[in-house]
Amino acid sequence: MSTQTADHTHIRATNLAAVLGYLRREAPCSRAAIATGTGLNKATVTSIVGDLLERRLVRETQQTQNHVGRPATLLVLDGSAYATIGLEVSARGLTALGCDTAGEQVLRWHRAGPGVDAGPAKTIASLANLARRAVTAVQSSGRQVLGITVGVPGLVNRDGAVVLAAGLGWRDVPMRAELVAAIGRPDIPVTVDNDASLGVLAEHLYGPHAGTGNLIRLTGDTGVGAGIIVDGKPLEGHLGYVGEIGHLRLVPDGPRCGCGRRGCLEALASLPAILARADVTDSDPQLQLEELIRRADAQETAVTQVLAEAGAYLGQGIAALVNILNPEVVLLGGAYALLADHLTPALDKALREATIAPDAGGCTVLASTLPDTATPLGATAQALTPLTRGHLPVR
Amino acid sequence: MSTQTADHTHIRATNLAAVLGYLRREAPCSRAAIATGTGLNKATVTSIVGDLLERRLVRETQQTQNHVGRPATLLVLDGSAYATIGLEVSARGLTALGCDTAGEQVLRWHRAGPGVDAGPAKTIASLANLARRAVTAVQSSGRQVLGITVGVPGLVNRDGAVVLAAGLGWRDVPMRAELVAAIGRPDIPVTVDNDASLGVLAEHLYGPHAGTGNLIRLTGDTGVGAGIIVDGKPLEGHLGYVGEIGHLRLVPDGPRCGCGRRGCLEALASLPAILARADVTDSDPQLQLEELIRRADAQETAVTQVLAEAGAYLGQGIAALVNILNPEVVLLGGAYALLADHLTPALDKALREATIAPDAGGCTVLASTLPDTATPLGATAQALTPLTRGHLPVR
Repeated sequence: MSTQTADHTHIRATNLAAVLGYLRREAPCSRAAIATGTGLNKATVTSIVGDLLERRLVRETQQTQNHVGRPATLLVLDGSAYATIGLEVSARGLTALGCDTAGEQVLRWHRAGPGVDAGPAKTIASLANLARRAVTAVQSSGRQVLGITVGVPGLVNRDGAVVLAAGLGWRDVPMRAELVAAIGRPDIPVTVDNDASLGVLAEHLYGPHAGTGNLIRLTGDTGVGAGIIVDGKPLEGHLGYVGEIGHLRLVPDGPRCGCGRRGCLEALASLPAILARADVTDSDPQLQLEELIRRADAQETAVTQVLAEAGAYLGQGIAALVNILNPEVVLLGGAYALLADHLTPALDKALREATIAPDAGGCTVLASTLPDTATPLGATAQALTPLTRGHLPVR
Repeated sequence: MSTQTADHTHIRATNLAAVLGYLRREAPCSRAAIATGTGLNKATVTSIVGDLLERRLVRETQQTQNHVGRPATLLVLDGSAYATIGLEVSARGLTALGCDTAGEQVLRWHRAGPGVDAGPAKTIASLANLARRAVTAVQSSGRQVLGITVGVPGLVNRDGAVVLAAGLGWRDVPMRAELVAAIGRPDIPVTVDNDASLGVLAEHLYGPHAGTGNLIRLTGDTGVGAGIIVDGKPLEGHLGYVGEIGHLRLVPDGPRCGCGRRGCLEALASLPAILARADVTDSDPQLQLEELIRRADAQETAVTQVLAEAGAYLGQGIAALVNILNPEVVLLGGAYALLADHLTPALDKALREATIAPDAGGCTVLASTLPDTATPLGATAQALTPLTRGHLPVR
């Protein structure tokens, strides 16, 4: 490919991404409004909108703008032709979410199990089965599946292998390769990513703090991970191993962690650690959490004390993030969101004590409003990355 | 200003920044090479180069390219018309560095004192005096001073006030405002920034690891701060309070830190902490460091043991950075660079033990090759920011 062609293709994709981004934020809107909003000239916008109409990514509405002059036809995103599938693996089970290209949910399934003890082979088989069924369901709604992304609570390398998922007891699992084989749809791209990174992506795109330049979200189910948005962009790092706040050592010679070390934040304040210390008796993960919340809400001292201790440890862990990254907002995800009232008094106190900047550097810690769905929702958004970067679906 | 005009000005600045950036990397080069390299059309490049020639930011050379066809006149950066001044305040004294716009040093001064006990008023008076003399020296070389930037070991807010500099014992010092008044040159912009942030900027622009996307540099004089480049850009955070790794608590109920807490990395492994534990007797800061290095190189057990302990604490602190940010390279600045041989065995061991990703996430820890000058050098680069963003100097 010549430089000229490469440049032209690149410019076309950049412009297409700008038009789609504008539509995502502002639709319904006219071609003229898109041209003004993106700084592109009208001929370019008309040509790009033509492509988008042809691929059924955009449609014209009867609705017209209420202003002086000739009425302009308005454009909206069309979700009827394509969707992506987001999956999550956690100690609480498997989740599948389907979203169309207009941002509407087209399916949402949760399946308990196969349980932390099942091991990677069984879990991947269950996940592939769920993915195949989700693909079939999306397709039978008339939509083409553009991609599948899976969130996992652990270190994921650039090939989609899980290097370590301490909370699941996984090490060196070539998850993407195995999933691709088990799903048996080589035409659909499959990506594997860290659950926390996907969770914060959902908050940054769709949550009440969407667009916040420096935003962190903690996962709170299997382990403790931080998804990090820095100066408006997801943090990636050298090899993608970012946000591993769960393995910050808070107590020298503290309790043993799933990673093999002692005194990690995760060993002190993860949901499994809290459940164990609060002597929760139920064996079903979902019912365990419900029991914990019920006993905490009843002000049972043994439980509120465990939660206050966990909150203080979380505050120390968040302080490390705040001292290094100075975020504006930290969101508590998963079970932490549901337990926030019991965690935050001790959490806020510890955070303020351990942060060098006054007033925790202007940071606010809040419960996520997407406690359960942020990871799979972020996964649907990530599977849409080629399109949001301006590359049209292959037909 | 109309949108059209704002856009046009913005595009002109972006293009000018692209041309200057290309020249900085590739000069000597022809106008045609700039056009190819930046993707701008030749008429635009010719017009921008005309502006740069007129402002004496660029000059033509007699040298021509050795290829078939008409010889092209080559362009190089011209440093004869403008310079910026970078200053550093540390426990070891005050430093001033002048760099012209071609990247050449035009002055470098170090002044011992006024000492940590002097307090902000006296230090700012000395610094303003140094800055005034530097301005005079740069001007008498025929160059206009485009800006002055000062690096301080502490939290600096957006107004250039020092919120806290634990190693200097400063709190809430309106440093920028006081410096501007004391320098008495309202025509020269003055900026105050964190020393570590400026240090890593110098490494990212000029050091042997220039361009590394995920790069961290630790300061090692007054306190312990981390300058952080993330995915190719300096980390800024919500209010600019980033990289405060020195106040990570490593030892609950450990030694008292300058910040008022206990067991911070800075209280365990900063240069002042090392000097105190090694019973260094000299009172002059520069001679203290020389004594420490001499005794360490002589394998004096009391000293090598203190340095091994400090190295292990630094490894734990760096592990927190690595677990959260997954950098490719961490550089040890200041005194740590000079002591690296004694620090790194224990440092590397602790880092590997405390990092969750295998092999420290691919991170290498190395001594900086700019141990003393990174902060003032980064300060000269930061003072050049308006120009590197494409805004021509006002005459």
